[in-house]
Amino acid sequence: MSTAARSEFELIARLTADLPTREEVVVGIGDDCAVLDQGGPRLLLLTCDSQVEGVHFTFQTSSAEEIGRKALAINLSDIAAMGGEPRYALISLHIPRRCPPEVLDRLYAGLRQEAAAAQTLIIGGNVSGTGAAETLAIDITLLGEVERGHVLTRSGARTGDILFVTGYPGDSAAGLYSLLHPDYPYPPEACERLRAVHRVPKPRLAEGRLLSELGPEIVTALIDVSDGLSGDLSHICERSGVGACIDVARLPLSPELRSLATLLGRDPLAWVLHGGEDYELLFTVAPGQEQTVQERFAAAGLAPLTPIGQVTDAAGGLRLRWPDGREEPLAVQSWDHFTSPR
Amino acid sequence: MSTAARSEFELIARLTADLPTREEVVVGIGDDCAVLDQGGPRLLLLTCDSQVEGVHFTFQTSSAEEIGRKALAINLSDIAAMGGEPRYALISLHIPRRCPPEVLDRLYAGLRQEAAAAQTLIIGGNVSGTGAAETLAIDITLLGEVERGHVLTRSGARTGDILFVTGYPGDSAAGLYSLLHPDYPYPPEACERLRAVHRVPKPRLAEGRLLSELGPEIVTALIDVSDGLSGDLSHICERSGVGACIDVARLPLSPELRSLATLLGRDPLAWVLHGGEDYELLFTVAPGQEQTVQERFAAAGLAPLTPIGQVTDAAGGLRLRWPDGREEPLAVQSWDHFTSPR
Repeated sequence: MSTAARSEFELIARLTADLPTREEVVVGIGDDCAVLDQGGPRLLLLTCDSQVEGVHFTFQTSSAEEIGRKALAINLSDIAAMGGEPRYALISLHIPRRCPPEVLDRLYAGLRQEAAAAQTLIIGGNVSGTGAAETLAIDITLLGEVERGHVLTRSGARTGDILFVTGYPGDSAAGLYSLLHPDYPYPPEACERLRAVHRVPKPRLAEGRLLSELGPEIVTALIDVSDGLSGDLSHICERSGVGACIDVARLPLSPELRSLATLLGRDPLAWVLHGGEDYELLFTVAPGQEQTVQERFAAAGLAPLTPIGQVTDAAGGLRLRWPDGREEPLAVQSWDHFTSPR
Repeated sequence: MSTAARSEFELIARLTADLPTREEVVVGIGDDCAVLDQGGPRLLLLTCDSQVEGVHFTFQTSSAEEIGRKALAINLSDIAAMGGEPRYALISLHIPRRCPPEVLDRLYAGLRQEAAAAQTLIIGGNVSGTGAAETLAIDITLLGEVERGHVLTRSGARTGDILFVTGYPGDSAAGLYSLLHPDYPYPPEACERLRAVHRVPKPRLAEGRLLSELGPEIVTALIDVSDGLSGDLSHICERSGVGACIDVARLPLSPELRSLATLLGRDPLAWVLHGGEDYELLFTVAPGQEQTVQERFAAAGLAPLTPIGQVTDAAGGLRLRWPDGREEPLAVQSWDHFTSPR
């Protein structure tokens, strides 16, 4: 259910305003997954997300197998963002006439590979033509489960909580930049890993499960970074009714991203703060529990983890704190499928 | 999960061959819905189906509201085709830039209307751009439930069973024909209802529930007529390992379809046997139970019900029996999104 920037969210909000609901819908539209209580010990998680040729991927920058893997990975990431375990996938393909069967075979091989790695079963789907349109689209619905009392949402962050992020946000955007500017003489070591991260992000499933195990008393809010750090942090803030301040000095920059930015004379922070499609986890931790979380991550050999700031009152809005102590508002800049150029 | 003709099914079969499964997957790919056993008294049904502009609908022949209603109705029909009760929907929209917001509002109003009528909650979804493509697409995943022991599939038909169909198959195809040939001077009374059936088919939910209540001992196989009577009957036959013979004299032809066929000098049987998108229910009943089923339908005031033939040995294949007793093979002619012209 993750999408991109303002106008998309405004559209969703308008279309889905005041939809009827029932008691068993624990979480409806507006989080990474919907959550249903069917009465058993585990709650059901549901999410759907699409990848459209020319919008989310191109065959120029990714192989068919990578496209299939990523289409499932971004949905797995939505399950991770609720602390859940993925279980079942339904795959809907919109296939243009000119698409060679071998491309579909390789795309499906990618889907199978990613599903197997996440112990997720493909149990249904659909194929459709696209008429006059020449764009391939992959629409996936994913079901997962999470233990009752252990679902983590975007809405529990409280003033004073510590803000954490896994891995190295910005790597995917830097990788995409290098893919879209292939003629620039990059040293391969600067780009290979960044490009791989962009092509097939790794859903942080084990990390999400550990956070869910710690529970909402310790991990107060959780989201995956699909729209960019600033955009997804703004989602947590909006849903939780809080503000947040990111400590620029603490932002984790991967060596590859640093060196690519230096080479290009670009500001690496633009990628780190606003680059989308990282699929890292961004979450808030109750004060005093930081060490517990960090120790548990380290003990389990999970993704690198960095405290990058703090949750503040809503009045503070979204802010950046520079190393000299100066603070300034942080404007959200997210990718928008409707208005952003590729 | 309902789709169209041969090459589509071959493609699905190839892509999904030998997918891994687990014990809790009662029915996987290949029926109207997947069926999951989560341990409770009811089984979970899952289906997904798309409607693509220029393939399944055009704004020339349907309003935005009708397009929204139909997109949900065809998924509701897949739940009906398992004997289930629909519960939750996830709506994924692929929206071209040129699409006016009012069109989306009306489309969503249609989705809401159809969901409310079926007591189905819209609990999630996604919106995406379409890049260079100018076609709107609606991808819906629907969840439903059915009581344990009461799920009806395509695969239980046995030689000697009686073949039934609800309503008037062919009406949708006849309505579509009249929509695609608007300049022909039809008398309105010949077309209005047929066109309405094509634009917004009525999912046979109450009928499916009654069949499920009767149970698989009485109702041995069930499918909805999305690909056409011949195509969907062939699905039952393939999955059940049987043949079938349709009694031409018993096929229910609506008065409107008859009069339109007469007016055009066309064979009405082509619509009845091969016209898709009827979303009527086609099912088989154990011998001796016909009257029970018919009485229950009549008592509940459900759709008209007609016994149209019999299940035979697989060796017989699909056949037609003419009023003079002559029998001939019935060739499947289904709509194919990949090869059929609009």
